[in-house]
Amino acid sequence: MSKRIAFQGARGAFSEMAARELVVGEVEYLPCERFEQMYEAVRDSAADYAAVPMENTLYGSVHENYDLLRTFRLPIVAEARLRIVHNLIGMPTATIGGLTKVISHPVALGQCLQFFRDNPGIASEVHYDTAGSVADMMRDGKPEVASIASSIAADVYGAQILRPSIEDDRQNFTRFFLIAREAPEPPADGPLKTSIVFGVKNTAGALFRCLAAFALRDINMTKLESRPLRGKPWEYLFYMDFMGSPQEEPVRHAIRHLSELTDELVVLGCYPAATSGAVA
Amino acid sequence: MSKRIAFQGARGAFSEMAARELVVGEVEYLPCERFEQMYEAVRDSAADYAAVPMENTLYGSVHENYDLLRTFRLPIVAEARLRIVHNLIGMPTATIGGLTKVISHPVALGQCLQFFRDNPGIASEVHYDTAGSVADMMRDGKPEVASIASSIAADVYGAQILRPSIEDDRQNFTRFFLIAREAPEPPADGPLKTSIVFGVKNTAGALFRCLAAFALRDINMTKLESRPLRGKPWEYLFYMDFMGSPQEEPVRHAIRHLSELTDELVVLGCYPAATSGAVA
Repeated sequence: MSKRIAFQGARGAFSEMAARELVVGEVEYLPCERFEQMYEAVRDSAADYAAVPMENTLYGSVHENYDLLRTFRLPIVAEARLRIVHNLIGMPTATIGGLTKVISHPVALGQCLQFFRDNPGIASEVHYDTAGSVADMMRDGKPEVASIASSIAADVYGAQILRPSIEDDRQNFTRFFLIAREAPEPPADGPLKTSIVFGVKNTAGALFRCLAAFALRDINMTKLESRPLRGKPWEYLFYMDFMGSPQEEPVRHAIRHLSELTDELVVLGCYPAATSGAVA
Repeated sequence: MSKRIAFQGARGAFSEMAARELVVGEVEYLPCERFEQMYEAVRDSAADYAAVPMENTLYGSVHENYDLLRTFRLPIVAEARLRIVHNLIGMPTATIGGLTKVISHPVALGQCLQFFRDNPGIASEVHYDTAGSVADMMRDGKPEVASIASSIAADVYGAQILRPSIEDDRQNFTRFFLIAREAPEPPADGPLKTSIVFGVKNTAGALFRCLAAFALRDINMTKLESRPLRGKPWEYLFYMDFMGSPQEEPVRHAIRHLSELTDELVVLGCYPAATSGAVA
């Protein structure tokens, strides 16, 4: 039986590309308009997994998804790092020389400024979505109009990559989590990572003591993100990722130690760490 | 001579309300369309100050302003905490009973859902801005249309507050910084707060050791925010606020200690701490 995987955006979105990296084998895709709908789809068994963007190396964290992870408590079962490659995509009959206009999401246009500097005869026009700009370009059928999107958007809509990788900055990655309804046993080989969220009591040195629970056991924290705690102005929740698994003794001790110091403590998941070389 | 103070948004925006709290005396206001324009105005002497929203207790930090503080390095000279109070504002001749529609920014509409539940005959309609919705309401001159905005928006555009404080959640505050071209000597009385930004070397326990520089000297950290470091994927800058001033010996030692551990360390400002009771 094929697996169903939800993602936010139109078919061909960068999130679909991450979904393809995260789940191999026979897969059906469930595009969702809003982030929350992905979580509902997994909770209600309309999907087996969801591919959730968590942070981008240029823009920072996707806070809505941190809040939703805590609300829905669906376990994180994998992570992936996707390099964001912007491609110039045209109609099958198009040529770069014949273009007068390129449409895409404003963030994508803003990340390909050198292309527009090098091609002053080509105007840029804002569209609500990267993959959606390819769909609309194909529907409108004008070969002088191109779009900027992921390579799979060209694939999905039967368009042509006129020039691959026109982004200005190649250090642009997005980290995704794969969430599921239930957590499998984490694999026995390879490094594991664990994600938790905790709320600290509002006292001097509170966060320092929380980090000590890990540092004193040589557990390596890889990410720390703060979010406001609703209803308690100027208090915060902290989302932390660290290397290791709650099945290891030092991690078990660190989590017990942390629970002495916190008002709320939830393990969001334990999953194989993505290799530092990102998936292309 | 009057002081010029820049803020983002239209006249009557919540940021103008913060500006009024932060600078007393004779003041001229300089509304800016984008955040960056406020910093440029202060740098280029078009304004003496700017009132910059940094975090909201429901939505979290305004990351663009953290990045801009580091880029422009204009010193923080004061902070304020503004409670976000949404008011139902109508034409001078309007009555609540005669309303058919209320226009405002989608965030403001979403924070006043109880009002719409209690008044099912009144529709809500999305507008690009809170203060702008009052301006447009007055221009269109239809007393059956009201808007939701700050109390000073009613003042600025000559409109009438039909019902004050219709927000669902009273625990909704925004923290503002006041930035200037030059830092004055911080006042000698009352508690001071200092804001810094630092980049940690990417090694195990690095952040823990940075926080130790403060915790071991009983310096109370009040906020920690991480932002991605551009060009170095998966490395972070940390923005920290703590109680105290670099003129105090323990703080001076902590900052010197921190500088041993960091690639980059900038003191963004030292300013009187806002009292925990927020300005209304």
